[in-house]
Order: sequence, then structure tokens, then C-alpha cells
Amino acid sequence: MERFDRGLAFMLQYENIAWYEDGAVRILDRRCYPRTVSFVTCRHYGEVAQAITDMVTQSAGPYPAAAMGMALAAYECRGRSEAEQRAFLLNAAETISSARPTTAKRMARVCETMLEAAEAAWKRGEPVDLAIRRRAIEANDSRYGKIAKIAVYLVDKFPDGGTILTQCFAETIVGMMLKEAKARGKKLRIFCPETRPYFQGARLTATVCYEMGFDVTVITDNMPAFVMQREHVDVFTSAADAITLDGYVVNKVGTFQIAIAAKHLGVPYYVTGVPDTVHPKIDDVKIEFRDPAFVLEAMGVKTARDGVKGYYPAFDITPPELVTGVVTDRGILSPYALADYGAKDAYEVVV
Amino acid sequence: MERFDRGLAFMLQYENIAWYEDGAVRILDRRCYPRTVSFVTCRHYGEVAQAITDMVTQSAGPYPAAAMGMALAAYECRGRSEAEQRAFLLNAAETISSARPTTAKRMARVCETMLEAAEAAWKRGEPVDLAIRRRAIEANDSRYGKIAKIAVYLVDKFPDGGTILTQCFAETIVGMMLKEAKARGKKLRIFCPETRPYFQGARLTATVCYEMGFDVTVITDNMPAFVMQREHVDVFTSAADAITLDGYVVNKVGTFQIAIAAKHLGVPYYVTGVPDTVHPKIDDVKIEFRDPAFVLEAMGVKTARDGVKGYYPAFDITPPELVTGVVTDRGILSPYALADYGAKDAYEVVV
Repeated sequence: MERFDRGLAFMLQYENIAWYEDGAVRILDRRCYPRTVSFVTCRHYGEVAQAITDMVTQSAGPYPAAAMGMALAAYECRGRSEAEQRAFLLNAAETISSARPTTAKRMARVCETMLEAAEAAWKRGEPVDLAIRRRAIEANDSRYGKIAKIAVYLVDKFPDGGTILTQCFAETIVGMMLKEAKARGKKLRIFCPETRPYFQGARLTATVCYEMGFDVTVITDNMPAFVMQREHVDVFTSAADAITLDGYVVNKVGTFQIAIAAKHLGVPYYVTGVPDTVHPKIDDVKIEFRDPAFVLEAMGVKTARDGVKGYYPAFDITPPELVTGVVTDRGILSPYALADYGAKDAYEVVV
Repeated sequence: MERFDRGLAFMLQYENIAWYEDGAVRILDRRCYPRTVSFVTCRHYGEVAQAITDMVTQSAGPYPAAAMGMALAAYECRGRSEAEQRAFLLNAAETISSARPTTAKRMARVCETMLEAAEAAWKRGEPVDLAIRRRAIEANDSRYGKIAKIAVYLVDKFPDGGTILTQCFAETIVGMMLKEAKARGKKLRIFCPETRPYFQGARLTATVCYEMGFDVTVITDNMPAFVMQREHVDVFTSAADAITLDGYVVNKVGTFQIAIAAKHLGVPYYVTGVPDTVHPKIDDVKIEFRDPAFVLEAMGVKTARDGVKGYYPAFDITPPELVTGVVTDRGILSPYALADYGAKDAYEVVV
């Protein structure tokens, strides 16, 4: 496979997200990728929830994983009465949605959509697990279609030969953005902050950029302001875990301080994604704190002595005054005018 | 030894910086401290220069190391004619000063001071190595005296029970600051960014704070803005590799973006140190770029795949408009009024 295709394939193949088949969900373990390519195989929906909690998959990965987890739950309760299956699936939806607090509401939406697919399958007398799997794939395809449109608007903002600063692993949008740039013959130089404590920037974003044939440089998380000042960065861009209707961006911790520095240095910040109808106001978003031990180690090696505390907010919140534009599949919107967007299904528009 | 004393001792004992004795200079290897306490023993002045280049010691450590390296050079050429010894020491001064580009000018000043001590020793017929060692200790004691005064002014700015954000390993000033806070009975909570790629914040600053009995929390370098916003940080403080007479702060990369965020969030930034007469203007400072490979690994483990580039500016530059005050041994000065300070010996005032 050509290098460009290999990078793109990583972004697009379902195997790299989560795949339900024969009573099991296989999830690419992004905690060690690309050093090691290994999969976590879940044979009970509770294991899918646990894998999501344990960060086996992250960024947009948990949503298809949740959907495929519902297919697995349907497989687990096959042969029981419809009422028993419904109760079993409701339990599964509850467990999977609670896997991570920040995304709980949106995960619940995903699970509801899969429950609707189950209801339709019961009516038609189809195997429920396969119906849910089909619905999960449809939702993902629809998501890819929207992201491809977002990529077109985003790449419009990049000058040919321009320099782009990213933040964290922006999932499919990175692949789509680079595919679009390559189609237009735009050369880009990309700086990726490594994104501690999990190094998603160094391990994942940089790998995709490299494999798709772009000039990519990893920096540590204390360097974005220096790079914006010295290396003539044209655009700072990131995806978002949520963009609330009142214009706030919830994304990987560090986004906020890069956005502050970008504003100070006159670099525009474009966030990709669509307004999150599940989280209309920033006050509805609960910031997830993770195990502080992760901050006290790097690649599995302890960095601080015993007794020193850690602190690990997974996300931070960037207010609308620091956001130049929200790049949606319907064009680039002001963060102050998101209420008009009218998205219906938050799951399908996650980037 | 009591915990407080143990922390203070780390800051103040010469063994932890560099110590010349019996034809050798011993330097604490800060690259692996505190996980491993080991010393690099140099038997030729060129090895001292190499140790400085290799970051065996950093922060203010290179200056006493350079001075003690000159004592070692004097030992190496003992017994030769005075003219030969002078030539040998001039060569040593040249080699040691060039060990790191950013500090070259100040290192040259240190070596000049040691050459003056050698001249005096020749006149008096004393052993030159011991005379240089004595001068190095005097310079260090004088530095400690100044830092103790700086600590008094700095601690004035901390409310009791306040929260302080640091950056990188601030050397002796951290020990002096905490000694002063403890003497006044001020409780403090301290957040230390880990300071990639070398983790000086996690390994060194946090260790000193913990051993001196303070509440200390390590964060990753993408978290300072979040912490300032959520944890009511009262003061952001750092030392500096150089404070130019025109008010710019040259310090560990990351200082600039924390200072931008601090300004945005209304947190005052106090830098400790004195105006650097060796670098009157910011244009005189050359930012040192180090081996990019260090950015592509963490605690010795590779983070990015082959082919991905790294980028490693050791320092960044914070302009005077982001600096609330320069805390000197003569009081807190505006960054716009440093020309009056009148420091004579840049070596003695390094913090």
C-alpha cells in the first residue's frame, strides 16, 4: 500500500476504531499505538465500557465502540424474550454511557440510537446484533461524509506552503483534512504538540501526518507559543470533544492555553465540529478528572518522587472570544451564532 | 536529618552543584536525579565542559561547575612555567565558556573572574587550584546572600495559604523562598509544571518543595492556564537564564506561554534575578536549539515513529509587557526600569 493510503486507511478503517463480529468487539489499543499494534477483544458489553474508561480508545473512538458494544449486548441476550432483551439492552446502555463522565450525555444518545435500531429489528424479526452493527456503520459513514465537508472549509483557510499547529489527536478530521489538502496540491508543514500525559500528538497525530506524506514536527506542550512566534504559524486548529451552543470549546487540556497564546500572537484558531445539542450551555459540561498517577509518569516511567501529588483534568474550556471560527459541514460559523446550526444527531456529527 | 533540612541541604550544599578536590570535579547528575543519585567525576577540564554541554548540570549549576573546572585546569598544568600555565588556563576558559551557546557570554565572565584569582595566586606564590576553588566558593556564597534577599521580597507577594505556580527548576531560589516562607509561618500550595523534555519540574522542583514540607502538585505542561483559572493561583513565578536590561526574560521554553496566559487571566508574574549586564539587549541573546531527538522521547522511551521530526528550543523570550515585576536583591523593579540597577558581576547574581 502506498504511504498516503496507509495513513488514510488508519483513519478510515473500522478495525482501527471498534468492530463487532462473531460475539466480540475488537478495539485498537491506542494507548500503545504506533509502537505496538494490538487490539483489546471484548466478549461482554461491560468489557467495552471498561475499555472506554481505561482509554483503550479515545477522541471519537468511544462512540463507535459504544455502538458496537450495544451490538455485542444484543448478541449476549439473544434467544431470550423480547422484554428480557429490551431490559438487558437498557442496562447495557446505562453501563456503556457511564464509562466516562465528560461524554456521558453524548454516549447515552448513541446508545438510544442503537436501541431504536433494536426496536426496528424486533418488529422485522431480524437478528438484533446485526441490525445494530449496520446502524453503527451507517452512523459512522454519515459522520465521515460530514467530516469530508468540514475538511473542505478548513483547508480553504490554509495557504499553500502554510504552517499549521494542531492539538491532540484530531481523529478522522486529520486524515480528511490532509486528503483534501493533497487533492488540491497544497503543501503544508504541521507542528504537533505531543499532548501529555498520553502523547496522542506524538504517537497518533504525527503518525497520520507522516504516513500521509506531510512535513510533520513534534514539539513538547510548553512550545506552542514559541513556535507560533518564530515559525509563522498560519492557523491553529483542533477538533473538540464538545462545542456548546453558547460557543465554548471543550477539548483536550492545553487547547485553552494555546488559544490564549494564538489570540495574543494574532494566529487564528479554527475548531472543527458542529454545535453539540446535547450540551447547549457550557454549564452542562462536567470536566472529567482522571487518575493523577498518569501525570506523575511518562511512557510508564515514574517522573516525580513518592509523596508529590498529581492533577489531571482531561479537558479544558476555551471561551468563544478566543475562537476565530467553528468549521462545520455547513460552513464556518461564528462561535456566537451557533444556535442556528440545527444539528439533530450529535452522534453523527462528532469529529 | 529533618525533612526540611534535607530539602534545603540539596539546594545549598556544594556537592550538589560541583565540587573540586584532589584533581577532580564531581558534578551531581541532574538528568536522572532524584530517581538515581550519581555524580559525574571529571579529571580534565574538557570533561567539565562536556558535562555542561550534556546537561549533567543545568539551571545555575553550570556557573560553579565552570569555576571549579578552572580550578581543575590549574591543577592539570601545575609545575609548568607561569606563562605556560596562563596559556593553559586561557585555553580552558575558551573551552568551558563555549560549552553552551546561550550562556557563553556569562560563562566567559565566570572564567575571567577565575583567571583573576589565578593571577593573584601567582603573585603570592600560592597553589593556583586552591585559590581558584576559594574564589568559586566566595562567588557562590555571595550569590546565596543575594538570593536570600530576593526571597524576602518574593515571599512578600505570597498571601498566607496562597497558591504559587512555578516553571522549571528554579535552583537555589526555590529553597531560599521556601525557607523564608517557613520562617514567616506562611503556608503555600505549589503547582509545578513537569517541564518537558527533561522533567526538571517533576524531578527537581517538586522534590525540593516536598522535602521542605510544602504541599506540591505536578501538572503537565499543557495545564498551567487551566490551573490558573480553576485553582486560584495567586502568583506565577520563575527564575531566568537572563533578564536583559531592556526588560526581556530569557527562561526555559514554556515561560512565555504561561506568562501570556497569566496576563490573560489576571495572575501576576514575578521573575527573580537581576538585570544581566552581559546581555544589555534582547538582540544580544542567542536562543540555543538542542538535539531534537530529546523531544521525541520521554524518560528514555521513544514517543513518535521514525521519520517524524523534532524541534527543541531550550529557552523562550518573555517581553516586558508580560512581566509584573523583577524581584532583585535590591527590591522589586519594573521591567521597564532595569538600567538603574547597576549590577557589576553577572556571575554573582545568577539565580
